[in-house]
Amino acid sequence: MRGSVLRGGRMLYRDDIPEPVPGPGQVLVAVKACGICGSDLHFASHGAEMLDAMADIEGLPSMSGELSLDHDVYMGHEFCAEILDAGPGTEAPPAGTLVTSVPVLLSETGVEMLVYTNNAVAGYAEKMLLSAPLLLSVPNGLDAKHAALTEPMAVGLHAVNASRVERGHTALVVGCGPIGIAIIAALRLRGVETIVASDFSPARRALASTMGAHVVVDPVDGSPFDSCTPSVIFEAVGAPGVIDDVLRRAPAGSQLVVAGVCMPPDTIHPLYAAAKQINVQFVFGYDPGEFAQTLHALAEGDIDVAPMITGEVELTGLHQAFAALADPEQHCKILVTP
Amino acid sequence: MRGSVLRGGRMLYRDDIPEPVPGPGQVLVAVKACGICGSDLHFASHGAEMLDAMADIEGLPSMSGELSLDHDVYMGHEFCAEILDAGPGTEAPPAGTLVTSVPVLLSETGVEMLVYTNNAVAGYAEKMLLSAPLLLSVPNGLDAKHAALTEPMAVGLHAVNASRVERGHTALVVGCGPIGIAIIAALRLRGVETIVASDFSPARRALASTMGAHVVVDPVDGSPFDSCTPSVIFEAVGAPGVIDDVLRRAPAGSQLVVAGVCMPPDTIHPLYAAAKQINVQFVFGYDPGEFAQTLHALAEGDIDVAPMITGEVELTGLHQAFAALADPEQHCKILVTP
Repeated sequence: MRGSVLRGGRMLYRDDIPEPVPGPGQVLVAVKACGICGSDLHFASHGAEMLDAMADIEGLPSMSGELSLDHDVYMGHEFCAEILDAGPGTEAPPAGTLVTSVPVLLSETGVEMLVYTNNAVAGYAEKMLLSAPLLLSVPNGLDAKHAALTEPMAVGLHAVNASRVERGHTALVVGCGPIGIAIIAALRLRGVETIVASDFSPARRALASTMGAHVVVDPVDGSPFDSCTPSVIFEAVGAPGVIDDVLRRAPAGSQLVVAGVCMPPDTIHPLYAAAKQINVQFVFGYDPGEFAQTLHALAEGDIDVAPMITGEVELTGLHQAFAALADPEQHCKILVTP
Repeated sequence: MRGSVLRGGRMLYRDDIPEPVPGPGQVLVAVKACGICGSDLHFASHGAEMLDAMADIEGLPSMSGELSLDHDVYMGHEFCAEILDAGPGTEAPPAGTLVTSVPVLLSETGVEMLVYTNNAVAGYAEKMLLSAPLLLSVPNGLDAKHAALTEPMAVGLHAVNASRVERGHTALVVGCGPIGIAIIAALRLRGVETIVASDFSPARRALASTMGAHVVVDPVDGSPFDSCTPSVIFEAVGAPGVIDDVLRRAPAGSQLVVAGVCMPPDTIHPLYAAAKQINVQFVFGYDPGEFAQTLHALAEGDIDVAPMITGEVELTGLHQAFAALADPEQHCKILVTP
């Protein structure tokens, strides 16, 4: 079957990927849409460093299997798909049902994260396997292209849930890429009264307004802290120096939620944070309940992700799409529609 | 009158300090005991850098007056004193009453922090002014030398109050200097079931046990994270690299309370914290309620600070005492007893 894999640091189209066979508890699905995540771009360019850095970290549950960059890496974790078939003795929705799922494949040998893996095809392919117990049927006739964005939007909901933000607060979102936009949508859903968003890109500021920001700030015109006093600041840039800049400028007693993942080591002044007793909550991912709640919000029309979708490509177009996503003026989210 | 001031980076004994005169709302007190704080040592060596770094920070209430290192700097903020006299029309406890106070002097011109100041004599002197509304009488016949340690012990109580720690948790305290010891005492007072303390110094580990740690670890023998899985980690070292090491080793979902103030810029790997969704609470100082609660705990015998007091000096001995405190084997807290 057709798909695109990461090999030697770039996305490579292949038409000879073996079609997976569902085992007990699994279903075979046809991918209808899969979003391209910024972390996939980063992994393509800096996979080896990311794996080294992750290997240094203690206190994490170990993942099943080793990941080798010398073999094809399957990616694509923001997917919506249609059920084709179920494994032996597997209870699942009927063929033709549109579903999504957290990107986890349960098998008899363990748990496979469908994010970067050598062992299971993920969303950048014609077909893939999913776990029957984790399937969520797409309700209300929601378009598969929108349902595919359940995953990135759940990241925003989780960041907001993990924060101390309350309705009466001012929240500042620094960086309006897909994660920042997902946070803005979740803040709006929560009813937060003043959502300020900051980004250098006019297109991203416009999208931030469309998705729920009450005020947008171009940092070229001055620090967003000059015009607002946020209780909670969401960092969604993930570049070195941003955390320290926020710590220096943030109000005393505020909370910084770090949602952008800065991969290289970063320098901070602990004194800035100490003097103002800042709370820093690092966040990552979401839980299954937040994922389901996000799908519901999309299906009910409480969050409209249509403005975020700025492009569509075929499975042959992954390499070009990765390059195109580098330009914030041009793109927010590109969907792969096999 | 006699006192010791910071001048040219070192403590200088003087016998010609003008005796202060209490204004309305103020009392004149005779200092009975004043603890030497590690931050005073640091300020003596790195005052200019500390002032520069503080000046960079936005979002802080501005302090009254500028601090000049070219003039005498009065220090000493861990004091217990006896009332001598009250200013005009001032309601205060009678002369002879033993009191303590948060190190703040209210006057008609503003608020003076009695920590580092050119404008008001602080605890390293024969006499000083205090604010009548802020006075706390020392109850239960508590020794002035113990009451003087209300201030540093309140820092520990505040760190514990600002944390998520619960009785059933394991708490790890990294660094058993005075702040780490104060945190251990506050954790014990809270009834936390497992308090693990880590320090390279045998004397400090012994003191940690005396003050309430259930387990002490010498980091030379291995990381404290090898032998415990803390829910909350208190960082009380304040040296570069410690925060990052904790982030790398801490359990997923844990909280790091940063109580040691690392003055220079520091390097962290945000990825370590992101992957484990760590919460980092920076803390500083205490509120007046915590200060009063700490004095009460000392007076009731719930916290016994006697083992922390490792030395006493006269006002002439500040310079030597600052040098002696550099050796963790020799000293925890030296009191100045004018």
